[in-house]
Amino acid sequence: MFTHILAPYDGSKNADRALEKAAQLAKLTDASISLLTVFRHHSMLEASLSMVRVNDPGRIDDAMREHASGIVAHGKQLLIDAGVANVRGFVRSGRPAREINQFAIKHGVDLIILGSRGLGASGDGYLLGSVSHKVTGLSKCPVLVV
Amino acid sequence: MFTHILAPYDGSKNADRALEKAAQLAKLTDASISLLTVFRHHSMLEASLSMVRVNDPGRIDDAMREHASGIVAHGKQLLIDAGVANVRGFVRSGRPAREINQFAIKHGVDLIILGSRGLGASGDGYLLGSVSHKVTGLSKCPVLVV
Repeated sequence: MFTHILAPYDGSKNADRALEKAAQLAKLTDASISLLTVFRHHSMLEASLSMVRVNDPGRIDDAMREHASGIVAHGKQLLIDAGVANVRGFVRSGRPAREINQFAIKHGVDLIILGSRGLGASGDGYLLGSVSHKVTGLSKCPVLVV
Repeated sequence: MFTHILAPYDGSKNADRALEKAAQLAKLTDASISLLTVFRHHSMLEASLSMVRVNDPGRIDDAMREHASGIVAHGKQLLIDAGVANVRGFVRSGRPAREINQFAIKHGVDLIILGSRGLGASGDGYLLGSVSHKVTGLSKCPVLVV
């Protein structure tokens, strides 16, 4: 019933729980999993760090991309250890919800599985994390929020 | 991986699409499905119909409960026709998101499947239907938004 699952992954505990469900569903339905980590590139980050002025913004992007690659590699290993046969990892920069939905459309994803709150979330309030909310609202395919 | 799926159902097209996924997943995982239709009882309805004064509010509740029962029966038949072995239907009155989440906790539901927008939704804007959003934000178990 599912052939291509997209698992946005930021390394948070909620993302790990979502990954477990993704692994179970992928094995049950013989689906492949695309793992995706999105980092915000420098110009967006700078807006929230107004006291910081950096001489070489390219180096921040490089560092963030490297960090994101490490997160993807970690998630990929978790899925392989869980017995998922077909896993690919991707890193993108930009606005997370938009990148996630664009990836899903472009790659024929038929299920997105993500944690209810990621690293950017504060506290345990009732509101859904903004990324989860935006992805669910924008998505053209079913979204499983774990 | 799932044993008890809750499918809130209002008879809308999105709810029908969610029901299809619920049927597929229930068959795949051998889970039972609880169908739930929630209607708003009279006092809540009246607040949005300020020009209407009714002599016998109990009769409205009765009519709404009967209508909700018809919707549940319809959904139940769809699931049985789709080959789901274990289906039960429920009708509740109150605030939809709260009733859905309370039902899930009380009955040990491990997956909620619902449409992204129900009958109460207007247009095709990007925002998730308010019931879907509240259920996803409040739920203690995974939620699949279809």
